[in-house]
Amino acid sequence: MLKLYQSRLSGNAYKIRLLLSALERPYERVTLNLGAGEARTPEMLTRNPLGRIPILELEDGRTLFESNAILTYLAEGSAFYPGDNWLRAKIMQWLMFEQYDIVRPLARVRFLISIAKQKDKFEAHIAELQEMGRKALGHLDRHLADEDYLVGGVYSIADISLYAYTHLAEEGEYDLGAYPAVRRWIARVETQPSYVPMITD
Amino acid sequence: MLKLYQSRLSGNAYKIRLLLSALERPYERVTLNLGAGEARTPEMLTRNPLGRIPILELEDGRTLFESNAILTYLAEGSAFYPGDNWLRAKIMQWLMFEQYDIVRPLARVRFLISIAKQKDKFEAHIAELQEMGRKALGHLDRHLADEDYLVGGVYSIADISLYAYTHLAEEGEYDLGAYPAVRRWIARVETQPSYVPMITD
Repeated sequence: MLKLYQSRLSGNAYKIRLLLSALERPYERVTLNLGAGEARTPEMLTRNPLGRIPILELEDGRTLFESNAILTYLAEGSAFYPGDNWLRAKIMQWLMFEQYDIVRPLARVRFLISIAKQKDKFEAHIAELQEMGRKALGHLDRHLADEDYLVGGVYSIADISLYAYTHLAEEGEYDLGAYPAVRRWIARVETQPSYVPMITD
Repeated sequence: MLKLYQSRLSGNAYKIRLLLSALERPYERVTLNLGAGEARTPEMLTRNPLGRIPILELEDGRTLFESNAILTYLAEGSAFYPGDNWLRAKIMQWLMFEQYDIVRPLARVRFLISIAKQKDKFEAHIAELQEMGRKALGHLDRHLADEDYLVGGVYSIADISLYAYTHLAEEGEYDLGAYPAVRRWIARVETQPSYVPMITD
């Protein structure tokens, strides 16, 4: 059976859970406590030398990391990663945007404010990241003003990837009220029959 | 004919030129002056609302942005993006690593030090990014200690993507002497028959 190494608060790991649910694919979850260094034990570093999760482990022991790479691997051949080359390119465009423009501004600010509770200590850094984050959310909002989903009018791994940290933006003190199309899209993702909530044990 | 919107100093645009050369695919180059705002004119914003290059424009006018997305699109069906699902997943893993761990620390520091010449003004920011960048280079070096190329022993879009900013690391005052396997890999990429240098008119 597939094995997913995750942590409870990781949006990156949550992406994989959303996709595995959509694929109705059984898997074993291994939940690590990152604060206690559980992703950086010698054994875990053989699975991902970067000491991060999520990690997907295949039945034969091979491991894959980087959440968006795991999405493309698992979704291959499904409706969530269509075969048409142009649609795939556009999905890839959004996955790259997510890595560069969404993860650091949104996930990092959420971590500093809502998880590490260090808002005062990193005030200037947070303000700078939030400026980047607002640009990224604005771009997303303008695109979604005319589209139900990010690519080709259907729910795909692009939506799964972007949803993960975007739906948590308010934990980084972003005002999603300023991005009404993003809000509608978040609600749309959450009405997928396969939708699963984030917090888990 | 394909059209590539680029700038002279962009490592991201250079990736596309390296691949197009490897594919022996003819294309038209449009070189923009980013400092003069040429990527943010109303016309260019219809091509990429983010106001960035590279942008690939197809014969029918459709546009694709995000350098790594362009690489996957153009390389589809070629030896530089093999059909095997596991190799594709590993290539994707490196492309995501490049976006998150290489571009900001390496490209941004190079820009601040060697292009904008603002080293003194951003000293603390540069030091922080360089610490991230050294971790990323260390990861790359350990992987390349036993491998000629990043994935599957052959030159692929993973090498093209990672090469672009890694080979410019010294313009961001990284000491590549500390990463001998990276240095050997850079030399190996540069001996590809299709290799083209970065600086162009």
